Amino acid sequence: MSVQPGTTGLVVQNITRADPAVIDGLAALGVATVHEAQGRRGLLADYLRPIYPGARVAGSAVTILAPPCDNWMIHVAIEQLRAGDILALGTTSPSNAGYFGDLLATSAQARGCRGLIIDAGVRDLRDLTEMEFPVWSKAVFAQGTIKETLGSVNVPVVCADALINPGDVIVADDDGVCVVRREEAADVLEKGRAREANEAAKRARFEAGELGLDIYDMRGRLAEKGLKYV
Amino acid sequence: MSVQPGTTGLVVQNITRADPAVIDGLAALGVATVHEAQGRRGLLADYLRPIYPGARVAGSAVTILAPPCDNWMIHVAIEQLRAGDILALGTTSPSNAGYFGDLLATSAQARGCRGLIIDAGVRDLRDLTEMEFPVWSKAVFAQGTIKETLGSVNVPVVCADALINPGDVIVADDDGVCVVRREEAADVLEKGRAREANEAAKRARFEAGELGLDIYDMRGRLAEKGLKYV
Amino acid sequence: MSVQPGTTGLVVQNITRADPAVIDGLAALGVATVHEAQGRRGLLADYLRPIYPGARVAGSAVTILAPPCDNWMIHVAIEQLRAGDILALGTTSPSNAGYFGDLLATSAQARGCRGLIIDAGVRDLRDLTEMEFPVWSKAVFAQGTIKETLGSVNVPVVCADALINPGDVIVADDDGVCVVRREEAADVLEKGRAREANEAAKRARFEAGELGLDIYDMRGRLAEKGLKYV
Amino acid sequence: MSVQPGTTGLVVQNITRADPAVIDGLAALGVATVHEAQGRRGLLADYLRPIYPGARVAGSAVTILAPPCDNWMIHVAIEQLRAGDILALGTTSPSNAGYFGDLLATSAQARGCRGLIIDAGVRDLRDLTEMEFPVWSKAVFAQGTIKETLGSVNVPVVCADALINPGDVIVADDDGVCVVRREEAADVLEKGRAREANEAAKRARFEAGELGLDIYDMRGRLAEKGLKYV
Amino acid sequence: MSVQPGTTGLVVQNITRADPAVIDGLAALGVATVHEAQGRRGLLADYLRPIYPGARVAGSAVTILAPPCDNWMIHVAIEQLRAGDILALGTTSPSNAGYFGDLLATSAQARGCRGLIIDAGVRDLRDLTEMEFPVWSKAVFAQGTIKETLGSVNVPVVCADALINPGDVIVADDDGVCVVRREEAADVLEKGRAREANEAAKRARFEAGELGLDIYDMRGRLAEKGLKYV
Amino acid sequence: MSVQPGTTGLVVQNITRADPAVIDGLAALGVATVHEAQGRRGLLADYLRPIYPGARVAGSAVTILAPPCDNWMIHVAIEQLRAGDILALGTTSPSNAGYFGDLLATSAQARGCRGLIIDAGVRDLRDLTEMEFPVWSKAVFAQGTIKETLGSVNVPVVCADALINPGDVIVADDDGVCVVRREEAADVLEKGRAREANEAAKRARFEAGELGLDIYDMRGRLAEKGLKYV
Repeated sequence: MSVQPGTTGLVVQNITRADPAVIDGLAALGVATVHEAQGRRGLLADYLRPIYPGARVAGSAVTILAPPCDNWMIHVAIEQLRAGDILALGTTSPSNAGYFGDLLATSAQARGCRGLIIDAGVRDLRDLTEMEFPVWSKAVFAQGTIKETLGSVNVPVVCADALINPGDVIVADDDGVCVVRREEAADVLEKGRAREANEAAKRARFEAGELGLDIYDMRGRLAEKGLKYV
Repeated sequence: MSVQPGTTGLVVQNITRADPAVIDGLAALGVATVHEAQGRRGLLADYLRPIYPGARVAGSAVTILAPPCDNWMIHVAIEQLRAGDILALGTTSPSNAGYFGDLLATSAQARGCRGLIIDAGVRDLRDLTEMEFPVWSKAVFAQGTIKETLGSVNVPVVCADALINPGDVIVADDDGVCVVRREEAADVLEKGRAREANEAAKRARFEAGELGLDIYDMRGRLAEKGLKYV
Repeated sequence: MSVQPGTTGLVVQNITRADPAVIDGLAALGVATVHEAQGRRGLLADYLRPIYPGARVAGSAVTILAPPCDNWMIHVAIEQLRAGDILALGTTSPSNAGYFGDLLATSAQARGCRGLIIDAGVRDLRDLTEMEFPVWSKAVFAQGTIKETLGSVNVPVVCADALINPGDVIVADDDGVCVVRREEAADVLEKGRAREANEAAKRARFEAGELGLDIYDMRGRLAEKGLKYV
Repeated sequence: MSVQPGTTGLVVQNITRADPAVIDGLAALGVATVHEAQGRRGLLADYLRPIYPGARVAGSAVTILAPPCDNWMIHVAIEQLRAGDILALGTTSPSNAGYFGDLLATSAQARGCRGLIIDAGVRDLRDLTEMEFPVWSKAVFAQGTIKETLGSVNVPVVCADALINPGDVIVADDDGVCVVRREEAADVLEKGRAREANEAAKRARFEAGELGLDIYDMRGRLAEKGLKYV
Repeated sequence: MSVQPGTTGLVVQNITRADPAVIDGLAALGVATVHEAQGRRGLLADYLRPIYPGARVAGSAVTILAPPCDNWMIHVAIEQLRAGDILALGTTSPSNAGYFGDLLATSAQARGCRGLIIDAGVRDLRDLTEMEFPVWSKAVFAQGTIKETLGSVNVPVVCADALINPGDVIVADDDGVCVVRREEAADVLEKGRAREANEAAKRARFEAGELGLDIYDMRGRLAEKGLKYV
Repeated sequence: MSVQPGTTGLVVQNITRADPAVIDGLAALGVATVHEAQGRRGLLADYLRPIYPGARVAGSAVTILAPPCDNWMIHVAIEQLRAGDILALGTTSPSNAGYFGDLLATSAQARGCRGLIIDAGVRDLRDLTEMEFPVWSKAVFAQGTIKETLGSVNVPVVCADALINPGDVIVADDDGVCVVRREEAADVLEKGRAREANEAAKRARFEAGELGLDIYDMRGRLAEKGLKYV
């Protein structure tokens, strides 16, 4: 990606997306597994919370860099959406204003958008919940925004402590949000599935009452480190 | 209003309330629309969150100014409640103590109170949820309070960054809380309904796949500001 | 308790627990009542929130002192669990990492554990919710942890502003978390039940429209303090 | 004051100020004494901190209501300044942007302004410190602002949890910021001086080693409440 | 320790203190070294900050358990002070009120007190700084407190995430605050001095340009873990 | 830059740096001017604060990606330092531990390092201040770290909401921290100097009492927007 994060005044129209089957596979794994599978990278900050419980989605990131309290660029971004995408918005300066509500969600959903990740505020929770349009946000706040200053669409953005490139895969569920580099998505899916299979076997042993101390053979190393039982 | 915010030791007994039909109309519009309709004024801070999702109410504010960790004035305020009112509590110094629980809610509900807005803590969530008595609070905390120091009832209070006069209309839902000056309530309702009608028309166009860029005719101004597509 | 809080490298294997009937009685009372009944002591900080609404549990604390971002000691603690216990984890340095997820919950639940109180992060919310394994945590965060450094099991720990001794009774519900000293548990239960009976009587009067001002005979003292009605 | 807090698009040009001698008297007392003298009212939130230690000022409030990330109204306000005034800025929505720096400080100081209270961010700390232009702010942040949206000058504003009317007296020092209603300023000064005199006498007794327990005759009441010495 | 943390209504009059020479030795080492020397235990939360830079003290803890917004127990505690002590205040519920100011500091200093650690607010910073009475606090806030409810003096208290027993040694400097168990103080001093001697030798090598990679012989282990240089 | 942010286990040894004269020129301008000169981009979050007032530096970023509570990579990074560099540390998961103290500062300073930007904690403030080694950090905390897990040196890192590439220019002063892309540094310097010259002229006019309303010719546009004077 040759465009610098933070560039304003630019809309990149044709971005490369990951294979839809890979994306859906990552959604099925969920955030915690995907994060582990890619070497514990890619988590967004834990202050991003879902507006309602139970959603689990993945999609290609259409990124938005927005000025504080200014949601103009969301309108620009919606034109760039394809079915299966997720909007991911970072700001040039912190803001908790309500950049996004039911009209924008209607528009985004009409174009096949699967959700929004926003390092700022959202509003119209009742409508968004009824529409089943999931949002992970820093704040819930009705404060309106203006349309005065340019940002960008589909440039790399820093969002909640993570860098998101356009076309990266966003995975989000009740545990939060994780970003997977587009080029690594297939590999992460494979590793994630292996991990899941391994966990299923472990879960059966745990259900049967076996201890992690034995399953993972930890007793020796604990003793070596000096753990005393009294 | 001739009483200064912050006055302690005073109970104002007869306050003027807005027209009940106007109040109910504002409730139907919800926080985001009301906030926009009155020129983006009146939002309380976004740290006030509902104790359960889905409530949407409006009512006349019976205001409480309370000392830190002291809920005595809530008892005084409940006597001043009329059906359709909402209690709105600010403190003279920050506190997250649990000022309000199921007994006070029972008492308030018995007098027709529709909910509580509190710039402090609340407790007994299980009971309040079962009673369907909605509360928007800064904290959930069981910490008890004392009854030692006077505050006031029905003086103007600063609550979560906003000034609330007794008799102002409080509107609250999943998006947060908004205050409407009593004198402006009818006008705000009218503007809110116009806005809602306008939004319904817009929503239909968005659902049909039209873009905000075209509906709001933004392309020219974006180009003028220098937005580049690549 | 002769072991100092903060001691690392130690597992205390045989701890004394409170009477199961007392523990279940405290669960039925809930956090707010228990906290009041023991003289307003024992609340953990209000930043501990349940991962889903509606759970109300009590159990004997099996305590864990864990290094930052290191969940090794949870495996050690699970071996010490008996049916009816609750895990209570404090850290030697603040962390919001996801120490606990579905595999550990499966293991703990297999041994009869009723829940987890954690002054750090948790993950796999979807699974934990389906399993009905309640957790009260400081954060929800998928960030993984390592297994490198010793902490302790069943030493006194400071967790969310409160000291928890192994074997103390933990009570947790939607209002938060409260700790009851093991030696005081039966006494607190008795006081809590008396309080509850008293509240039931009060609730009936409040429901009938009586005011707290009269029920608690407050008018005289308010006048004495100088409260003015206008 | 007949203008509602939150009104935008308005500049009130002639405001009434308190007696300069009273204002200077309040400055000499400092925030803690003034706050006590007026019955523990009027403190702004403790997140407002001075940009350098040691300043102690008082002045008449020229109030600014500013949109988020927009400092246009400060220019408008500076024209309304008279020697001895203090600028007090609240926002219509939370912002930590750097609204104010060395050029605006130069302009304000040229008109006799004594300082700035801002519920947002400030920048150019090195210059402001050299100029000895004190600022109490919520944040230090270089983030620039725009000049697009109207706010107001000299309408009542909520600033850091307190209502400030134009012409109210602002007192600020290392302890924070306190607002005194203009009409009450002379009375608060008198009470504050009495308090100070009383404290001087007390201080001498404390320096001599007398205890507060005896000076304030607390032992009886402590015993009555049940305090036990072991 | 036979008194439970959280006990109210109690003053323990005769507490055991550590050897003054040991205490002064710990002060000379400072917080970071002491914390390391005792196995990385005992730090109070990082939100405790000194009111002015440069102070470095140690002393025996005279502990105070105080109700929210109520500083009555500080008067009680001052009577228990001996030369070389440090007051350490925790609250039964969170508060940022200004519990302590210049009069109490005068009284404490007259009795030889070396400073205050307070998990709440402080005021009169100008005076305290002039008096060179150091305070580490959670907040600076002029908000006054009342004298209505009992707490305790010289019971164990949780203060800023750490348990402090009466007579424990408090060490505080610009890095924050650390508590050392009285019984361990001499041993920690010895280990701290050894550490300091070792650090002096290391410092000389670092000053000469040697690398930690070589001084600590890290290159092999880094390579083993897989670190690649490109 | 072909290395993905977040890559672990990698040390990039030869990075390109900006022209030292350009770097020093940017230091002289300071954060606020540099930030404006590059179009209001590049600020790090305002929670990064200097450990002492008055420092103003610029240097080439040697970046560190560090695991939570693990400072091993700082030793690796110091070997990569050249005179005039600044260390910039981001973490793979949030931490406030004290990663850096006087020994590491001695080592870094011996190699010509000008300071540290750290999205975590620092300790040994007294020594660092005496050494005049400036640090901008998220926390001051003595909590020790371990050396167990690999991170990286000189890969792009997200630090306090901003992306920093190795070799980018870091500018830091009392206002905070700003990053300038290496390729843009000369251009930003030129624009910053032009801005500074322009500000000097403006400052003279402000000092003479001219108003921003006139200097910037704002009156017409304010009237157009509807500003009313009463």
